[in-house]
Amino acid sequence: MFERAYLDWNATTPLRPEAKAAMAAAWELSGNPSSVHSEGRKARRLVEDARAVVAKAVGARAQDVVFSSGGTEANALALTPGLRRGAGAPVTRLLVSAVEHASVLAGGRFAPDAIGTIGVTRAGIVDLDQLRNLVSAGPPALVSVMLANNETGAIQPVADVAEIVRRAGGLLHVDAVQAFGKIPFDLASTQADLLSLSAHKIGGPKGVGALVLAEGVEGLEALLRGGGQELGRRAGTENVAGISGFGAAARVAMAALKADAVRLRGLRERLEHGLRQTPGVVIFSDDVKRLPNTVLFTAMGMRAETAVIAFDLAGVAVSSGSACSSGKVQPSYVLEAMGYRHEFMQGAVRLSLGWSTSETDVDLALKAWRKLADTLVKG
Amino acid sequence: MFERAYLDWNATTPLRPEAKAAMAAAWELSGNPSSVHSEGRKARRLVEDARAVVAKAVGARAQDVVFSSGGTEANALALTPGLRRGAGAPVTRLLVSAVEHASVLAGGRFAPDAIGTIGVTRAGIVDLDQLRNLVSAGPPALVSVMLANNETGAIQPVADVAEIVRRAGGLLHVDAVQAFGKIPFDLASTQADLLSLSAHKIGGPKGVGALVLAEGVEGLEALLRGGGQELGRRAGTENVAGISGFGAAARVAMAALKADAVRLRGLRERLEHGLRQTPGVVIFSDDVKRLPNTVLFTAMGMRAETAVIAFDLAGVAVSSGSACSSGKVQPSYVLEAMGYRHEFMQGAVRLSLGWSTSETDVDLALKAWRKLADTLVKG
Repeated sequence: MFERAYLDWNATTPLRPEAKAAMAAAWELSGNPSSVHSEGRKARRLVEDARAVVAKAVGARAQDVVFSSGGTEANALALTPGLRRGAGAPVTRLLVSAVEHASVLAGGRFAPDAIGTIGVTRAGIVDLDQLRNLVSAGPPALVSVMLANNETGAIQPVADVAEIVRRAGGLLHVDAVQAFGKIPFDLASTQADLLSLSAHKIGGPKGVGALVLAEGVEGLEALLRGGGQELGRRAGTENVAGISGFGAAARVAMAALKADAVRLRGLRERLEHGLRQTPGVVIFSDDVKRLPNTVLFTAMGMRAETAVIAFDLAGVAVSSGSACSSGKVQPSYVLEAMGYRHEFMQGAVRLSLGWSTSETDVDLALKAWRKLADTLVKG
Repeated sequence: MFERAYLDWNATTPLRPEAKAAMAAAWELSGNPSSVHSEGRKARRLVEDARAVVAKAVGARAQDVVFSSGGTEANALALTPGLRRGAGAPVTRLLVSAVEHASVLAGGRFAPDAIGTIGVTRAGIVDLDQLRNLVSAGPPALVSVMLANNETGAIQPVADVAEIVRRAGGLLHVDAVQAFGKIPFDLASTQADLLSLSAHKIGGPKGVGALVLAEGVEGLEALLRGGGQELGRRAGTENVAGISGFGAAARVAMAALKADAVRLRGLRERLEHGLRQTPGVVIFSDDVKRLPNTVLFTAMGMRAETAVIAFDLAGVAVSSGSACSSGKVQPSYVLEAMGYRHEFMQGAVRLSLGWSTSETDVDLALKAWRKLADTLVKG
């Protein structure tokens, strides 16, 4: 049999068996959660059970979890002018780090001229001095900094970011889509005012996510209106099966979090050790804290698009940075923001691991790399 | 065994077996449709296969189908200032019929003062004279008229609406969510510029829908941005399994359309005949064309919220008009718009049928009604 390894877990994660089981069970319910009859109430219960699990996973109250159609919608919903803490002043501008996901860079409902960018270091970490200057030089700002980067895996010092933002009277949105289920965190440890999550990054279904609010955050305006669902913050019939699958995946991911991190870190070390046998291999952000599952690497002269296809033909699914621009392989704006503009315009390859990744998968990837390195790397 | 009948298909439709099978198959694919590797391309193929089916079902080109998270998002996306036909003038205001779904009444991205309402007749049909006056008394308008009403089932003369709108230089959006799979129609027969569809009303999954554009419609602005998915018109990782389930449901629903309509009409006649045995029963919109599966009725003194609960306890799931406001039973704005403000403020009960409804279900409902009528109806 032809062996194949899937090492593109940051793009999307294979479904966990528990999520499948939860969704198959939900399929048998005929009701709409907004209906008052027995069938409706059963569907409602599934949604609320999942809400409790997701809330607990990030230390939030259940009523502060707003289910969405995914991380992109959660981010679009989060980036709302007018957000405030309690009776505080509403935010009127947005500051985003230069390495945010494209859905955050898009700016939500802020006007383009109300959006500023915070630079990052060569390791991809937010420049805190620059943040301090930007956030205090103007009216209250919503700041959006991701917990971990989807391309490099670099983990941002969000608690430090939060302190700076709060001191300047701003609010902090943390896109935790890529970090969720990979490292431990919650609302308290991040000090976030809003958190975005996505189900399909933790082994739940595609098409489901959540925006989580800290207690006391006010002024969120629905993006989808015309229905009382999600306490008026997101209209539309709930994706009952998908939400139920999200809850099941979150439950398992949280229970497995510590053990998975140790196991994945071991596999990643094996992978990086193997990659570094090739002279000139560079692993990005390897001098800062990273997700335990992510390796972004390049070598002189390696063209990412050629490499991804060569890996694929050799039986290994990998990615060239983010997979979110409709199959097009483009220079990574993340590496550009990190100052790699000139040396590495040809791009980098991302290998990411997950709950069912085995040593065999890693070894298949290394075997493919050894075969390919000679032609891909111009030494 | 306790017999139970589900007669609330307009709120949501039980999943078709074919949709379940398509989704279970999609679960086994690990890729993200935006990834270039083999796993990604397989997921992409499922999405594009479903797109072709949905496009064919309404006579559209595949590239003009934009998948969404449901009917509400499709409507929110459709109601965009700036839409135009080819080099025509962009629309700057919105006219909606008074009986539209709440997600259309919310007005999308039009400012509240740029939205007008078109009245309806006592049968719930759009007042064409009023439309003619409104649409010609101002700059180009987007007009939104549903194909069939979710509460009464009344079918609007959308082709006549389209002619009036087009003559005045406007564009027509048709919310076909409730009509899809119940009556035959397509872009040509409706003359719509934009059509909204939802999967869970035809036996597909909850959390999936589509906005379909007629050829030559320009100026659609994405609601979710930051990703090239759906040709830049809807960012976010695609709900691959859900979309695949939508495609499967659409294929079956279209194949069964004619036979289903005949069968459902027969069942509905049986149901209405039984209901009319109670003196004073009123069936709304029964003098105009209706969906073959929908009955909205009341009787003097009947309180909808009490009736729905009584039916539920008697083993029959029914609805009090629309189910889209988080379990709250409120006076129907549809009946108010039809001029029933005074006589029927207590509301009406909706019984709706679908692909697996049997004579036994109908007879259970009638048995429950005969038992309940004495206490619910004040003669």
